[in-house]
Amino acid sequence: MRPSKRAPDALRPVSLERAVARYAEGSCFVKFGNTHVLCTASLEEKPPSWLRGQGRGWVTAEYSMLPRATLERTRRESTAGKPSGRTMEIQRLIGRALRTVVDLPALGERQITIDCDVIQADGGTRTAAITGAWVALHDCIAWMKARDMVKANPLKDHIAAISCGIYKGTPVLDLDYAEDSEADTDANFVLTGAGGIVEIQGTAEKTPFSEAELLQLLALAKTGCTKLVDLQKTAVA
Amino acid sequence: MRPSKRAPDALRPVSLERAVARYAEGSCFVKFGNTHVLCTASLEEKPPSWLRGQGRGWVTAEYSMLPRATLERTRRESTAGKPSGRTMEIQRLIGRALRTVVDLPALGERQITIDCDVIQADGGTRTAAITGAWVALHDCIAWMKARDMVKANPLKDHIAAISCGIYKGTPVLDLDYAEDSEADTDANFVLTGAGGIVEIQGTAEKTPFSEAELLQLLALAKTGCTKLVDLQKTAVA
Amino acid sequence: MRPSKRAPDALRPVSLERAVARYAEGSCFVKFGNTHVLCTASLEEKPPSWLRGQGRGWVTAEYSMLPRATLERTRRESTAGKPSGRTMEIQRLIGRALRTVVDLPALGERQITIDCDVIQADGGTRTAAITGAWVALHDCIAWMKARDMVKANPLKDHIAAISCGIYKGTPVLDLDYAEDSEADTDANFVLTGAGGIVEIQGTAEKTPFSEAELLQLLALAKTGCTKLVDLQKTAVA
Amino acid sequence: MRPSKRAPDALRPVSLERAVARYAEGSCFVKFGNTHVLCTASLEEKPPSWLRGQGRGWVTAEYSMLPRATLERTRRESTAGKPSGRTMEIQRLIGRALRTVVDLPALGERQITIDCDVIQADGGTRTAAITGAWVALHDCIAWMKARDMVKANPLKDHIAAISCGIYKGTPVLDLDYAEDSEADTDANFVLTGAGGIVEIQGTAEKTPFSEAELLQLLALAKTGCTKLVDLQKTAVA
Amino acid sequence: MRPSKRAPDALRPVSLERAVARYAEGSCFVKFGNTHVLCTASLEEKPPSWLRGQGRGWVTAEYSMLPRATLERTRRESTAGKPSGRTMEIQRLIGRALRTVVDLPALGERQITIDCDVIQADGGTRTAAITGAWVALHDCIAWMKARDMVKANPLKDHIAAISCGIYKGTPVLDLDYAEDSEADTDANFVLTGAGGIVEIQGTAEKTPFSEAELLQLLALAKTGCTKLVDLQKTAVA
Amino acid sequence: MRPSKRAPDALRPVSLERAVARYAEGSCFVKFGNTHVLCTASLEEKPPSWLRGQGRGWVTAEYSMLPRATLERTRRESTAGKPSGRTMEIQRLIGRALRTVVDLPALGERQITIDCDVIQADGGTRTAAITGAWVALHDCIAWMKARDMVKANPLKDHIAAISCGIYKGTPVLDLDYAEDSEADTDANFVLTGAGGIVEIQGTAEKTPFSEAELLQLLALAKTGCTKLVDLQKTAVA
Repeated sequence: MRPSKRAPDALRPVSLERAVARYAEGSCFVKFGNTHVLCTASLEEKPPSWLRGQGRGWVTAEYSMLPRATLERTRRESTAGKPSGRTMEIQRLIGRALRTVVDLPALGERQITIDCDVIQADGGTRTAAITGAWVALHDCIAWMKARDMVKANPLKDHIAAISCGIYKGTPVLDLDYAEDSEADTDANFVLTGAGGIVEIQGTAEKTPFSEAELLQLLALAKTGCTKLVDLQKTAVA
Repeated sequence: MRPSKRAPDALRPVSLERAVARYAEGSCFVKFGNTHVLCTASLEEKPPSWLRGQGRGWVTAEYSMLPRATLERTRRESTAGKPSGRTMEIQRLIGRALRTVVDLPALGERQITIDCDVIQADGGTRTAAITGAWVALHDCIAWMKARDMVKANPLKDHIAAISCGIYKGTPVLDLDYAEDSEADTDANFVLTGAGGIVEIQGTAEKTPFSEAELLQLLALAKTGCTKLVDLQKTAVA
Repeated sequence: MRPSKRAPDALRPVSLERAVARYAEGSCFVKFGNTHVLCTASLEEKPPSWLRGQGRGWVTAEYSMLPRATLERTRRESTAGKPSGRTMEIQRLIGRALRTVVDLPALGERQITIDCDVIQADGGTRTAAITGAWVALHDCIAWMKARDMVKANPLKDHIAAISCGIYKGTPVLDLDYAEDSEADTDANFVLTGAGGIVEIQGTAEKTPFSEAELLQLLALAKTGCTKLVDLQKTAVA
Repeated sequence: MRPSKRAPDALRPVSLERAVARYAEGSCFVKFGNTHVLCTASLEEKPPSWLRGQGRGWVTAEYSMLPRATLERTRRESTAGKPSGRTMEIQRLIGRALRTVVDLPALGERQITIDCDVIQADGGTRTAAITGAWVALHDCIAWMKARDMVKANPLKDHIAAISCGIYKGTPVLDLDYAEDSEADTDANFVLTGAGGIVEIQGTAEKTPFSEAELLQLLALAKTGCTKLVDLQKTAVA
Repeated sequence: MRPSKRAPDALRPVSLERAVARYAEGSCFVKFGNTHVLCTASLEEKPPSWLRGQGRGWVTAEYSMLPRATLERTRRESTAGKPSGRTMEIQRLIGRALRTVVDLPALGERQITIDCDVIQADGGTRTAAITGAWVALHDCIAWMKARDMVKANPLKDHIAAISCGIYKGTPVLDLDYAEDSEADTDANFVLTGAGGIVEIQGTAEKTPFSEAELLQLLALAKTGCTKLVDLQKTAVA
Repeated sequence: MRPSKRAPDALRPVSLERAVARYAEGSCFVKFGNTHVLCTASLEEKPPSWLRGQGRGWVTAEYSMLPRATLERTRRESTAGKPSGRTMEIQRLIGRALRTVVDLPALGERQITIDCDVIQADGGTRTAAITGAWVALHDCIAWMKARDMVKANPLKDHIAAISCGIYKGTPVLDLDYAEDSEADTDANFVLTGAGGIVEIQGTAEKTPFSEAELLQLLALAKTGCTKLVDLQKTAVA
């Protein structure tokens, strides 16, 4: 039995609220249960310096947690003087995932920065962030289309992400913090709307896992991401 | 005529929503119009190291803005490697203001950190932060009282803050960003529930101001803070 | 009775020595009693990068204390890796105050940096710094005028600053360290030669203060700044 | 055809040279073709501060590249002021992988740091580092056993790592730089001697990959890691 | 002919003014011509942490230049985030030189920090700093003796330093900035009162120098340091 | 008797292995006994920004030690956030020494960076680094000559470096760590192939040294550097 009483293949209640940030070109407040992330898309009319003059745009992401998003207060990274290794790992993942569904030349020489700020954290912040970031990115691109800034549609597919893990011997979908801190194996999957795999990050915390277990987790992830993509479609419809 | 059509002595719509953060000992989401600040209070069972063994507690504050709280995206301070001068100035002000109404020995050897994170910024973020921080602090202390952690009430009075300024020659209350960026003089006032002045910070952006103008601004601030304290009382009732 | 035996409205002995730095375009060694600050003005033939091409100049300030300016040695900020919040607050104040009396377009696309280095600290370092910085700035502009670099006089008025506070119940002028560390209320005032208020920063350390007390402090400040401006006039005559 | 003419399931020539560092408790110079990594194990007689008094030890790793390990010189991270996101991601991975095969309570309250310094980089530095780090760790633990510092053997299994990818449509093993920069999909696998999966990190650089492709890559990785573990066994025999 | 018209073996006018810093345990304002350095000695009643419990004290130094000590303004090191390589090299030299004449066990478990702040720089700042630092250190130790804090005299000898160089083919003593920037060879010598060599740092800027030239520079340095030690004796008499 | 049984004027076994780094334009792995340094030369087709447009090139050096090059593990400087004072001192010395034998205008507007990474440290790392760096620089310039990038030969002479010291009263050549940590006096000499002195850094650790001792050390250094230059000639022949 999961701590949340959910079935092994059940997502937490998910919501995707659009247009929550007054000034951003696109935004989404995403909730996976008690995990809440504010995603904003900011358009800049020039690409990063290392990309100048190449006729392509760029999509990047930054990730941060409010100090008291967590059970115990976490030290602010501006005070620590630099983002932690975990933060850098996550924001690199988000940016990489989004770029796989964007036609960068079609963006033109521009940069879109997706800021994912975790307001409350109950496990799965990176997967919620990716799922919400896609909505913010979609709306930013819609904003550009409304202003005739792009011709072809630069957004080629959906992207959604979910965590799976082996909790007390059972493969389960969408781990919350109570499960995550106990799970033997924890894996994050990023899938496209078409079902292609964009990223797998699976880690055995204690006991190595087998190929069979990996396939069980992947099957759960496909179920979960299909639902998340449906929710994205409803949200942006 | 003010850009917002408000009367010179009118506050923006103010709301103080409590208990918005699942894990914090106290929290408040404060809105002054389009300025939105999330304030959380975190209790730590030891004082800062420089205060150990002195039988007193401490209240401190940290302040930050989400990158896209503003019209244009602001660089994250964790990336810049340190909080800006403006951030440090504001968080020192918030902490100092709160401490004037707290009986620090009555807290015991503990520290309360109030995090004020600006979700959206339309002028007056520091005054909204102080006003909301008081509510978060109040609820943190109530949490401690409910657990018999303190005997005497360590919270001696209310604290609220408001900005005033001279906009196109007229003294006005609670400047939004459109006014703030045009105002000749900008002053922030922090007052107690009893009407005492805890902090005045008045700056002439262009033209020096006179004693008479200072008194007009102070009168507006008293009106504004009285209303804010009433709203705090309603909120925590 | 004040520790220094001064009357409540008496300044410490003040001196403003010009041309003390061999290489600077303007300089002033200012003493407010045992508080000694070396102010130098450095002219640079280009504005800060964010102001390029706008036909205006800029005046900025930096503030620092020698490690043993104080009773106990203070850690060097270059070792700490960044200026403290207090340092940033003070240098922002000095720059802002000076800019209110400078016609920035008349300066041309140039920058003047006023460095205020505290050689010895006995309270009131920021007010001494502002008062001396004005003299260094004046001499730097005189240096420019002597070389026909500016047409109209870019310096529109004097600027002087003084602290006031409520010490053992009595409003007093120009607090030294012994008073400052005991005062209930501490306020810094920056006034122009014409008597206009450029900045007020008043803080209740323990007990809130009243409007009547604020006015008493402002009256003292006016007396003090009038004398300081007279001393500036004598110095640059 | 692979640029190196290797068969799709062929490793590069691998060598594991032990005892190459005069002062370290264990060391290994590992070569995967032109990728060369020096791994040293340093024993410290106390655990990290956050683990004190818990009766367990810790294994951690640091990773770095010499500036001219690469085709073009890379800026030194000590000059940049902090390790890059990539560096932090890799060293976290190495440490996590090693810890899955170490009985931390059996180590006692000690820390072993594995430094992995890339002397030359031709793709696959993280997998070479993990494979060599295991040898350095093994020898450090042997050093401890020789001195009766541990009772039970704290090292429970082998750990080896290899990259696989889809290069021009074909799944291939152990990508060098020429393949890595062209590959559609790149995945790193960390496996135990018993064949359990400890970590999978698979990323689609351009085109999403399918479940079938994932299984092909995993099969290649099993082949590769089996050979690497054999080489480790020969090396430490 | 030297730019300053001095004879090849002539020092600039040197002065050593004691007790210039109100709060320091010892201080000296040293002038070598237009090079002016403020040296203060600060006593701390505990040694650096790495020396605790060893029954010895420590003497260390810090060196800094005011931004406008130089012809053109230099960026503040607190803004740059760290001391420059040149600064670290010089402060390590000053500390090392002073320690050679101090009986560290006789100091007891204490630390003396000598701060050398360059108020004005016209070449030879490090040699002026060492020469003045000795006086500040002497007075700090005298302060300790007056309070019976030390038994044996911890100060065993004088230390003085001077630069020499080959300017337009002629070996000269005590280079000012005009000579220093033109000299082929530049060497700094630190000598004891007894004439022993404590440190030699000789650098060929353009043309290598010979053993004969080295000996000529050393002879000049002996002459110079003898005079500087005499001036120290007069100063502390 | 020296700990290594060497005669007072005997170098440790020295080797200079060229072309050890696959990607660098020049490289040398230098061993002075158990001190091993990898030197690589990296050519960049533009000079540092402060030298642009002056028709000259630049040669610079960076120095670092692997964490476990030493008896006890040293903290990584990228983790500490900046190079230590010792590191900066050494890399400034290496760059300065190399530049004295390079015709910088003949290089053209380019920069050569010599990275000296200490793989194992047993005393004398800076002298080994300079001696090996010359070989790497030589080969980088040969690489440029082979591509007709330079006309005149920009390399004017050899540069080699050695340490000398007074160990238990006897002047000895090429100190290893066991001697270095015990020596009264430690001096590093950098000489050209023609026998000119480029740099002397002599430090009395405990007892000041005399002119006679300095000359004995210099004589040893000349012997040592002559042999090192012969080894360089053999290496690059």
